[in-house]
Amino acid sequence: MLLRSASQSLSDQLATRFATHIRDHLLAAGTRLPSVRNCAEQHDVSPSTVVAAYDQLLAQGLVEARRNRGFFVRDRSQRPHPAPASPVAGGLSNSKTLPPNTARPYGATISATTLMRGMFSYQDDKPQPGVGMLPPSWIATDPLVTSLRKVSSSAALREASVRYGDPMGDAGLRRVLAARLGDLGISAGADQIITTVGATNALDIISRTLLKPGDSVMVEEPGWPVEFTRLAALGARLLPVPRRADGPDLEVMARYCQAHAGTPAAPRLFISVSVLHNPTGYSITPANAHQLLQMAEQYDFHIAEDDCYGHLAPAHATRLTQLDGLRRTLYVGGFAKILAPNWRIGFLAAPPALLEPLLDTKLLATLTTPSLLERALAHCIEQGLLRRHAQLIRTRLDAARSRGVKLALAHGCTLAAEPAGMFGWVDTGVDTDQLAMRMLNDGYLLAPGAVFYAERRPSTLMRINFATTQDAEFWGKFAKVRDAMRG
Amino acid sequence: MLLRSASQSLSDQLATRFATHIRDHLLAAGTRLPSVRNCAEQHDVSPSTVVAAYDQLLAQGLVEARRNRGFFVRDRSQRPHPAPASPVAGGLSNSKTLPPNTARPYGATISATTLMRGMFSYQDDKPQPGVGMLPPSWIATDPLVTSLRKVSSSAALREASVRYGDPMGDAGLRRVLAARLGDLGISAGADQIITTVGATNALDIISRTLLKPGDSVMVEEPGWPVEFTRLAALGARLLPVPRRADGPDLEVMARYCQAHAGTPAAPRLFISVSVLHNPTGYSITPANAHQLLQMAEQYDFHIAEDDCYGHLAPAHATRLTQLDGLRRTLYVGGFAKILAPNWRIGFLAAPPALLEPLLDTKLLATLTTPSLLERALAHCIEQGLLRRHAQLIRTRLDAARSRGVKLALAHGCTLAAEPAGMFGWVDTGVDTDQLAMRMLNDGYLLAPGAVFYAERRPSTLMRINFATTQDAEFWGKFAKVRDAMRG
Repeated sequence: MLLRSASQSLSDQLATRFATHIRDHLLAAGTRLPSVRNCAEQHDVSPSTVVAAYDQLLAQGLVEARRNRGFFVRDRSQRPHPAPASPVAGGLSNSKTLPPNTARPYGATISATTLMRGMFSYQDDKPQPGVGMLPPSWIATDPLVTSLRKVSSSAALREASVRYGDPMGDAGLRRVLAARLGDLGISAGADQIITTVGATNALDIISRTLLKPGDSVMVEEPGWPVEFTRLAALGARLLPVPRRADGPDLEVMARYCQAHAGTPAAPRLFISVSVLHNPTGYSITPANAHQLLQMAEQYDFHIAEDDCYGHLAPAHATRLTQLDGLRRTLYVGGFAKILAPNWRIGFLAAPPALLEPLLDTKLLATLTTPSLLERALAHCIEQGLLRRHAQLIRTRLDAARSRGVKLALAHGCTLAAEPAGMFGWVDTGVDTDQLAMRMLNDGYLLAPGAVFYAERRPSTLMRINFATTQDAEFWGKFAKVRDAMRG
Repeated sequence: MLLRSASQSLSDQLATRFATHIRDHLLAAGTRLPSVRNCAEQHDVSPSTVVAAYDQLLAQGLVEARRNRGFFVRDRSQRPHPAPASPVAGGLSNSKTLPPNTARPYGATISATTLMRGMFSYQDDKPQPGVGMLPPSWIATDPLVTSLRKVSSSAALREASVRYGDPMGDAGLRRVLAARLGDLGISAGADQIITTVGATNALDIISRTLLKPGDSVMVEEPGWPVEFTRLAALGARLLPVPRRADGPDLEVMARYCQAHAGTPAAPRLFISVSVLHNPTGYSITPANAHQLLQMAEQYDFHIAEDDCYGHLAPAHATRLTQLDGLRRTLYVGGFAKILAPNWRIGFLAAPPALLEPLLDTKLLATLTTPSLLERALAHCIEQGLLRRHAQLIRTRLDAARSRGVKLALAHGCTLAAEPAGMFGWVDTGVDTDQLAMRMLNDGYLLAPGAVFYAERRPSTLMRINFATTQDAEFWGKFAKVRDAMRG
């Protein structure tokens, strides 16, 4: 909200707000600013105040005027070369894939990278409904401190510093992870596990190892947009598979496989968040998993099971890797969603025959990973500290989810999926791209439904993080903006 | 050496030795084992002992017999798909690029990945002439312990764990790195620096950002083979540029640029270890650097300057990034060669216009990097601990180099390049692939000249690490094996 009593003039305040959004990448290059009239109405100021603010942005080189069309955010980065052609019709919702003169409609601006950067730039602010992690205040630090102290005696630190370390990752951590997988019913030896720089890096290593440019990969839709962006950057062809409550849509998968069987376009890989799927919260059923694995066998593709929300799931949840025994499946795990996002520790478990090429990719990308933090995490798991922390988090999240659902319903939303885990997949009844843009004016980062589609489409859905959407003030603003949109 | 008095039989000892080499990837798939007669002579045992040993390896599935041709190391990995076609005529010296039925001649087996894995598997053994890092005993751990303690108070640890952290890397470390670059005469703001998982990861991020599959990249030859392997895996086309004492061969570069100017095959990037080049130890002259930068301007390519041996260089060494002011050059630095290989901290500094795409690549590959270690390193540099340690290392390395050169000359070698830094580029007068295979029998890992060429070629050169080649016993063995090869 603009303050008339503040030391800055109203136009200065308005210009500063837009400038911050542009510098934080929350307004992407090519975005059209609201028309002077709309902006004046929205902020309850005179049109001349808006014109003065836009002129400031022009002077700062942050926006450019296009004759008779309005003001647009300038592209300040000089791309080294054009981004690869969009791998699916309609393209990724990313400014890089738009031809330079395409106007991006006002509102369609929260892209995958915007959302990801928002996770960082907004972290010190009030709770944000759009982010994908627990609030820092939920994370217990005592176990981290205890475990780090334990492994950083002078001798241990020396050992964990002056050599490159085991390329597979710290052997102690890999043993502990193998035991954890055993608890989930997944048989994997410590020698089948490779540690990585977070789950993100595990998925990157798998994609780089199993896919060549031009190869086809099946992805879940809706799904995690960073995955789409990464795969597109690798030159892969994305085949979106609708995600249902029981798992991926097997009929669609079968059609892809049949159509391309025996050709170079045959899908080589399917990437799935099978348990507590992002953004819906769905978990795969044993029946769907069984049939999916049969299809993978018949059509000879691999499956990467991204279990990064697994710590939040009930113990009995079915994993593809559990049924398959890591024969054509690879398991990806991490700790960023439960313990220490910044320690950047993830891992993959893979069929024996794939370990060497996967390890080669890790070596070429980062050589090894830091043993010190891996040893501290191993201690943390071995002592049961992680297990107890995860129990507390699940209990706390259950309460937050219950309250979050009530708040959403009370403010006129419906739930598009049975709520589970960290995320709610919420129908607002209005275009959430527009909604997200307007809420940004009030300092709230939303995750509009459109970004979760490989082929961007208008959507009335949004993903909320139950842990960060407990704020009555947020819901009040939300209802006000939504009602204004409905006119 | 096989021991007649040992509890194991001679054939068991021989089989165990081969099995270990195969499992450690020091004998690549497709390698032909020595003939029974040669092996018997070399180890001074009877042919029947060798036959018994080879039968054990057959039974363990480690080798296979080919009729009338001998025994070959089996390919135990099931590659997910064929490796990309070799980007240069002759191909990388890597078993993956050989057709499955190609016999790899006995001796041609120390490939890039072998050498890299040897750096890990041999690290607990006696000093190895072929490795590319300082002996662990040379690394001072006290500064690391001091600095880590300093930054891991409960509050600081909390701050460095529970949030993802700044995507660019810890702001404090980036300020310290900017100051260090300033000391080298390179003007870079902290906001032009991105931290990475070691220098390896910085080079990977740069290559992934600036190169599309099929793009041409100029590399130095001889050069670091892991770089060739990484670029080939990205689908890049390698254009080898001979490295001379004064810098890259500018005539060859001009020919590449002229031939492809204005076409998609025009080189987009040149990657150079300009100071203390690996393996020769050469450093670029100001005149060569100036002309190289003019060529980059004229033909519109970027230069990535890999300065990972910079801590070992004299203060006045010329850097390309210093002359250019980071306009079309990118600087890559790391600490693995001087301080803490396993902390995996490196960084890049880049022209402002490239920062956003580079940061996108980092985010897609690893999200962020661990702040805790970055803060400890920042403390270590700020307190002058790194500077003092580097001075000691340079003094110690000077002495080792002086002694290493004398030993090499005394054992009949000549130096193919003026010795400087960590490495000696030594002419042995015999084929170093053969030499390396034979020395492996005595437990020594050598770095034969052939692996440093993108297009593998026989070579009488080898790279020695002065810090790990001080051992009179090694030089004695070396002379004996070399003399036997000369017959």
